[in-house]
Amino acid sequence: MKNQKKLRVALAQYNFTVGDLNGNRELVLRGINKAKTSGCDLVIFPELCLTGYPPEDLLLSRQFVKDQLTALQNIQEQVNETACILGFVDLKEGNIYNAAAVLYSGSLKGVYHKIQLPNYSVFDEERYFEAGNEPLVLTINGVRIGISICEDIWIKDSVPEAEVFCGGAEVLVNISASPYYIGKFQERFELIKTQAKRNRAFVMYNNLFGGQDELVFDGQSLIVNEHGELLASGWAFAEDFLICDIDVNEIRALRDSDNQFISDSKGFNNPFKSIKQVQIQHTLSAKTDPFPKPVKRPQFNEADEVYNALLLGLRDYVRKNGFQQVVFGLSGGIDSALVAAIASDALGSKNVHCITMPTRYSSSGSVDDSVLLANNLGIDLLKLPIENIFQSYLSLLEPVFKDLPFGLAEENLQARIRGTLVMALSNKYNWMALATGNKSEVSVGYCTIYGDMVGGFAPLKDVSKMWVYRLSRRRNERAGYDLIPQSIIDKIPSAELRPDQKDEDSLPPYHILDIILELYVEDNKSINEIKAEGIDRQMIKDVIRLVDNSEFKRRQAAPGIKITPRAFGKDRRMPVTNRYRMK
Amino acid sequence: MKNQKKLRVALAQYNFTVGDLNGNRELVLRGINKAKTSGCDLVIFPELCLTGYPPEDLLLSRQFVKDQLTALQNIQEQVNETACILGFVDLKEGNIYNAAAVLYSGSLKGVYHKIQLPNYSVFDEERYFEAGNEPLVLTINGVRIGISICEDIWIKDSVPEAEVFCGGAEVLVNISASPYYIGKFQERFELIKTQAKRNRAFVMYNNLFGGQDELVFDGQSLIVNEHGELLASGWAFAEDFLICDIDVNEIRALRDSDNQFISDSKGFNNPFKSIKQVQIQHTLSAKTDPFPKPVKRPQFNEADEVYNALLLGLRDYVRKNGFQQVVFGLSGGIDSALVAAIASDALGSKNVHCITMPTRYSSSGSVDDSVLLANNLGIDLLKLPIENIFQSYLSLLEPVFKDLPFGLAEENLQARIRGTLVMALSNKYNWMALATGNKSEVSVGYCTIYGDMVGGFAPLKDVSKMWVYRLSRRRNERAGYDLIPQSIIDKIPSAELRPDQKDEDSLPPYHILDIILELYVEDNKSINEIKAEGIDRQMIKDVIRLVDNSEFKRRQAAPGIKITPRAFGKDRRMPVTNRYRMK
Repeated sequence: MKNQKKLRVALAQYNFTVGDLNGNRELVLRGINKAKTSGCDLVIFPELCLTGYPPEDLLLSRQFVKDQLTALQNIQEQVNETACILGFVDLKEGNIYNAAAVLYSGSLKGVYHKIQLPNYSVFDEERYFEAGNEPLVLTINGVRIGISICEDIWIKDSVPEAEVFCGGAEVLVNISASPYYIGKFQERFELIKTQAKRNRAFVMYNNLFGGQDELVFDGQSLIVNEHGELLASGWAFAEDFLICDIDVNEIRALRDSDNQFISDSKGFNNPFKSIKQVQIQHTLSAKTDPFPKPVKRPQFNEADEVYNALLLGLRDYVRKNGFQQVVFGLSGGIDSALVAAIASDALGSKNVHCITMPTRYSSSGSVDDSVLLANNLGIDLLKLPIENIFQSYLSLLEPVFKDLPFGLAEENLQARIRGTLVMALSNKYNWMALATGNKSEVSVGYCTIYGDMVGGFAPLKDVSKMWVYRLSRRRNERAGYDLIPQSIIDKIPSAELRPDQKDEDSLPPYHILDIILELYVEDNKSINEIKAEGIDRQMIKDVIRLVDNSEFKRRQAAPGIKITPRAFGKDRRMPVTNRYRMK
Repeated sequence: MKNQKKLRVALAQYNFTVGDLNGNRELVLRGINKAKTSGCDLVIFPELCLTGYPPEDLLLSRQFVKDQLTALQNIQEQVNETACILGFVDLKEGNIYNAAAVLYSGSLKGVYHKIQLPNYSVFDEERYFEAGNEPLVLTINGVRIGISICEDIWIKDSVPEAEVFCGGAEVLVNISASPYYIGKFQERFELIKTQAKRNRAFVMYNNLFGGQDELVFDGQSLIVNEHGELLASGWAFAEDFLICDIDVNEIRALRDSDNQFISDSKGFNNPFKSIKQVQIQHTLSAKTDPFPKPVKRPQFNEADEVYNALLLGLRDYVRKNGFQQVVFGLSGGIDSALVAAIASDALGSKNVHCITMPTRYSSSGSVDDSVLLANNLGIDLLKLPIENIFQSYLSLLEPVFKDLPFGLAEENLQARIRGTLVMALSNKYNWMALATGNKSEVSVGYCTIYGDMVGGFAPLKDVSKMWVYRLSRRRNERAGYDLIPQSIIDKIPSAELRPDQKDEDSLPPYHILDIILELYVEDNKSINEIKAEGIDRQMIKDVIRLVDNSEFKRRQAAPGIKITPRAFGKDRRMPVTNRYRMK
């Protein structure tokens, strides 16, 4: 009966959308059919795939929760010989749970409730969910599968270990919605390998892919065997469908002979009172034709990985919000140039509209370089000089401003005229406006609220200036020519809002600024800790002061794509009213 | 030795500021001195008074936590014969706790860690704090005082009961930072009375007062005796200092003779492993001169209560952020008129600057009524007609807009010109810009992003249109004349952005709209549940669709003062990308 210990399993790495109950249901049904056609015994979908992740306060609407239970019911009725594990919101005695359903042959065979609820960084799961307290092991044709959800597998000596050591699980399935940041894949891969090796278990890790507001889920699902060897991995930032045959006889043999496993197993202190066992008597199984060897998709290098995260984040935000086209100002600077490249790559060049809006303070290059860039990208470029409008404001304000010197008010005025024009086109043609500012600027408030901060989305909000350069150079490298004109890359950064203005008049050089910002904003370091990097104390204090003083601007900033361990937005919840200034 | 069971206790209801470690320290020292001068044995300060509440992600900075421990140390050194209980952030083995310190005679006698951490509505305490697990009873001169923090007293059969039934506490001290909404005081008072009666204990409830971003803490501290009778209550929305003498002999006599108490006590199932006991040997006590009878401050009626919440919320936001003066557009409508009255009352009329910015679509009343209102309030009114600027935009855009009909783009253009002018004055004179929109408009998106939504703060963000009328009428009633001109109150609501425009062209009448919004936004009701109120189904669906579709605007809205159980902001965390539309 050796064959009965074999199982063919599929991971459906699909792009689900928050709130799209009908669309998500159809996507699950598509995956189930595909798995069936491929002779799979089991198909697995990511965490909360029915609602999309994170559904946030939609979860406080009882109607929403019930509607998604109706979608689950509909799926259940269409499941037959291919079993299915999928994420949904369970409702029991007035409480809701982040849950995994086991569906088979028209019925709901079991439900697992997520035990470890993350409530840090961008996560608020304690706000909504009750925590489960019972691990679950599903047995199909004698193969024992421990089910867990995302965070569960990150906590040591908890759910997966209980399922293996006490529940006899040979396969660990984890359904996830794990958001991307630089280096996250490597962290996850190390974790999965460690879990596989420690537990002598097959690990099937299914991660959501797709963009949702400030988050990008990168997919990169993983299948790792009991030796910690990678058998299959899904695409980054794209749909995938991984199929793998599992033979648990090898796992059993390994466990029986491995003294370390036996002693780990005996020494494990199970924190849970009970483990739920779910049985499926199954007849499909035992494929005669083995499925082709599982695929390992290539990894991107770091710059391409970030670039692709930005593409997916922008594309999904625009399209899932019902837009096709975007509009923004091209200043002739590097930030808007990179946004133009990203938008063209993400949405197609015919869907990108740019405006150059020079004043008396604009360098000649600001228009010429924008024209060249627009030609290279094949995007629409409008020229709207704002001098007359600027003059009409100044005339009206003359009796009020009197003889006060030209200053911030006049500078911001130009940025706000531009923002107003971008929005006029946005409103007229239903193009989504994009804000082009980068993380370094947004950090220190070197941007005009209601001016260049105007936009429904800010693709570079979490991309520092040094990363803007790196991504631009890499994009040109891939193009094989100066797609982004070298003159734009070489230009000394300037807002061009007064004569001879340069960013470095107000800020430290970006390569130093970005080091301070990473240590302060992302790592919460103190001034002394940052000084240990060899940076001048007064410079650090000045930068930190700028960051603290511009919280009010960020509170009204457009959402943007998180690519670092700590982005602005719900990842960094600072009070606006805040008199603390670090010394 | 009967006198030894007497204690004189003070509640310091002070306005602490988030992050102002030095200012908060000085405020605590002021309260300690005042208590000492009044012969008090003990003085009590609110929850997290050292950091201000809520400190949000400041708590993730280790330097901040350490700096506030330094402030605590400084206070401790200055405490002598008057003991002190105050809220601070404790740091133990890398974890932080929402804590209460007991200080006496230069030393830290004990620390209580909050056990019940709220993580719903505006609260995120699980994000930061470890939960405590040990109630604490402090004994001063034989009087036993159970300490708890805010949420602890709201959970049945938890901290206060354990302190009384198992720890012998006769007095329950609760230090709070409980934010205001309409009706909150009554909820709190009922709770405190219930706790006092059930536990046959004196309850001393100290609540923070002051504004912090979107929250207003109303104070209204309470002292209730063992029969549930109110002995003292603090001002709403103002500083107060309540002193009360406690005689626990009466409590002991009552408990000894009360069979219900004895049986409750025996039947109580203590959820905690241990209760910490802290002793203070004290010599002050036993006042010869009894303090004058404790005061009960009068309650406001509901409309005055809301109005005063708005005054405090606005005043503290403006001043704690370093501003003195404000600027906003006066449209001639009721919303900006009410904001003008509130701003004058909160900041003084000399600190209020308004601008009337008519176009061809403005009614003659819009300017005349604004002039009359400004005269009544004694505030500054600038007249800046925007016709020329509007024309200069239209000319520039003519080749782009071509023959497309006048529409949303042109309407929003006017609102954005006004927003730009408000910001120009804000930048030039360092006046904080205010957005004047109400909750009804913000709910359905009947407002222009970067236009009338411009502002550092939005005083009416949580005030529905019907409440705007109610507050305006009440303000006139208190003034004894039409401070807000009757013509403004009677005017049919209009944005005046195109000829003969009326709000009711796009929206249901406000008295119906507000009912739908309250049920949907605040109570999370379904369409069927709202329909049960007798409202047309299609109208409900249309309104809900507007609410759902304008989430992107609210994401970039200025903060405003929460006065309802569910305000926009961190109280309602909806995804922007969200395809769910209720049916």
